[in-house]
Amino acid sequence: MARILCERPNTHLRLTHVLNRNVARKKVDWLSPSVKWTENIDDVLSSEADIVVEVIGGMQPTEDWIRRALTSGKSVVTANKQLIARCGPELIGLACQMKQQIQFGASVAGGVPVISGLQDGLAGDELYEIRGILNGTCNYILSQIEANGVPFATALREAQKLGFAEADPTEDIEGFDARAKLAILARVGLHCNVKASSIAARSIGPIDAVDFEYANQLGCTIRQISWAQLKTGSKTTPENTSEKTPKGEKLFAAVQPALVDLSSPLARVEGSQNLVMAAGTYGGETVFGGHGAGGNPTAVAVVSDILAIARSKRPGTNYSAPQGERTPTVSSDFVTKHYLRFLVKDRPGIIASLATILSECGINIDAVVQKPDCPKSHLPFLITLEECKASLVERALERISSLDFLVQPCLHLPIL
Amino acid sequence: MARILCERPNTHLRLTHVLNRNVARKKVDWLSPSVKWTENIDDVLSSEADIVVEVIGGMQPTEDWIRRALTSGKSVVTANKQLIARCGPELIGLACQMKQQIQFGASVAGGVPVISGLQDGLAGDELYEIRGILNGTCNYILSQIEANGVPFATALREAQKLGFAEADPTEDIEGFDARAKLAILARVGLHCNVKASSIAARSIGPIDAVDFEYANQLGCTIRQISWAQLKTGSKTTPENTSEKTPKGEKLFAAVQPALVDLSSPLARVEGSQNLVMAAGTYGGETVFGGHGAGGNPTAVAVVSDILAIARSKRPGTNYSAPQGERTPTVSSDFVTKHYLRFLVKDRPGIIASLATILSECGINIDAVVQKPDCPKSHLPFLITLEECKASLVERALERISSLDFLVQPCLHLPIL
Repeated sequence: MARILCERPNTHLRLTHVLNRNVARKKVDWLSPSVKWTENIDDVLSSEADIVVEVIGGMQPTEDWIRRALTSGKSVVTANKQLIARCGPELIGLACQMKQQIQFGASVAGGVPVISGLQDGLAGDELYEIRGILNGTCNYILSQIEANGVPFATALREAQKLGFAEADPTEDIEGFDARAKLAILARVGLHCNVKASSIAARSIGPIDAVDFEYANQLGCTIRQISWAQLKTGSKTTPENTSEKTPKGEKLFAAVQPALVDLSSPLARVEGSQNLVMAAGTYGGETVFGGHGAGGNPTAVAVVSDILAIARSKRPGTNYSAPQGERTPTVSSDFVTKHYLRFLVKDRPGIIASLATILSECGINIDAVVQKPDCPKSHLPFLITLEECKASLVERALERISSLDFLVQPCLHLPIL
Repeated sequence: MARILCERPNTHLRLTHVLNRNVARKKVDWLSPSVKWTENIDDVLSSEADIVVEVIGGMQPTEDWIRRALTSGKSVVTANKQLIARCGPELIGLACQMKQQIQFGASVAGGVPVISGLQDGLAGDELYEIRGILNGTCNYILSQIEANGVPFATALREAQKLGFAEADPTEDIEGFDARAKLAILARVGLHCNVKASSIAARSIGPIDAVDFEYANQLGCTIRQISWAQLKTGSKTTPENTSEKTPKGEKLFAAVQPALVDLSSPLARVEGSQNLVMAAGTYGGETVFGGHGAGGNPTAVAVVSDILAIARSKRPGTNYSAPQGERTPTVSSDFVTKHYLRFLVKDRPGIIASLATILSECGINIDAVVQKPDCPKSHLPFLITLEECKASLVERALERISSLDFLVQPCLHLPIL
């Protein structure tokens, strides 16, 4: 986070303090000498800083410190999912009371801006369902069982060796980590005040390689799914009909391994990626996906929250880019691989003529492909090119366009 | 939009005027009688309304009206991509000067909150690339060519018949619609002030069924891709190396048909869905997807913008849900199909005993699957169940758990 604040030019944010244990050992040389390093929270709380960022984790002393920060007139940015899941509403209430803000975009799905997406971007909708993959460790382990046909215990051990799972993996495997995140999303997206502990969590431990074989036969795969569905008895009730909608509002919520259709975006989430699908009465289904863990993506979420607070403290600056506006030159001359599809009247020597021109233009052919059984008078065939500028290809195609065997101009597409 | 404002309870927004041609013919009976219907913009501009919503489209008279609204101290929400692509910076400047806001979330990708996602959610990152599918008409036509092997002209005619393409499809087919949107995203996400007309646009017209056959052979499909990539010569430059990075900043930008890998989220966008992938120096790749067109999704974007303005005008209310907070009862008793995987010591009558218990519990079996060549002493097999409550299945499994042929407890997963 400090690095992003340092590296991004023209930003109107200034880092004032770093609080850590063993400051002497942890101090870095690339931060401005004006930044104060301290082991004492009072140095931070008594300073003029406007915003306190908490990335310590755990319940104590963080909760106390955050309360004191808000009470002393500072806004707070936190990445602490357990704290927000447990005391979010109270802390938000305290912030409002103090005319400050508390932002927690990094507490769910790391760099994926799903909290602001649900809270602001989809504020105009009435969301009734959230489904997501919120724990990269489980996703990694399940992918490994699927890919290598290994037992759960082997996949877990492998994940621990590679640093994808912790020595004590209980929080992840049993779904406790994900249900804290789901409780936050249910609050932000479905406006449901639920305790994480009231959400059922089931372990991925019993999943075996044979389950992926069977899931595949059903056109599915298995993922740890965090799922919350609101039933209000009004029109927002989704389509399940085998049950009478109860009076009053009911939230179905669980974190559990589940079969998901291979065509669902949930089935394609890999490694530490996170994905959240939100369904709304008016806007239908919206998907947010990206890096759910890691220092840099989490830091992006923290800095985005800082910027949101800074913007709201200085109304009228809503649109000022931190870096200032660019007015670059614009070009469509991307460097990519290329797809050239010809339609020709077949005769000997066609490939030779095309290859000669391409080579004279300094372009390397990647492959030549021709599907069987095509009419000689309208023969479609394909040349793919190694990475080069589009303009280079266009120049070659200008020379090629005069060749007499072409039935129509060559179709030229980039390969992304 | 009016319907959302009516139907959502407890909202602090009040609809004051509806401006339209032929008000007498268009007036509806479900809006409050306090709403004034008018054909005269001056009625709106001279009113006490805080926010003017423009969903007329086109350049005139909309530009004049928006300028007058801002000048008379009202904020503006617009869905007008052409206007924002052409005059966005000026209108934003005017809004800042008047201490008002102009929001345009609905101008790109309908209900997908990509503008707020890039502008706020990823504000902490340094984005260098945006790739997206921003035009549902092109996506529909290309999918039809792919699925049915029909020529472009046939697919276009079919799309026109079904209302997915307009009588004059030029704006969509030639990429003009998408490049206006790309210009807006480049400004919001890459902080590049570019004219839409400076972005190259290539038609999807030359794409033929044979191109999908060849693309498939390469592990790809073909989509209309809106692509903008910023090269700054600094560390934010992505990995293309075959070109020397020019001095100064350069934006590569184009809207064109392109081959995309079948594993890319871009390859799986269907019908009128839109998808945007943003790549950042710190956070990596983030994906936003959902309904890119249609009245309801667009209305969600407009109402979200209205709420954002309302929030910023009343600081301290950032977190108040429009509907108020819910405290529902929480249950994990979802209604779904179910997956039951057994591990048994094989003997005659196993299926019969299981089927009897399930049927006595009122549960319908969907399928019984057994993979071949398994050891009789550790035989895994699968029963899937039709939709029912999870609790019903758990009750049946309690009875089943006492059966003596089970080698381990049955694994029970929901099928989403």
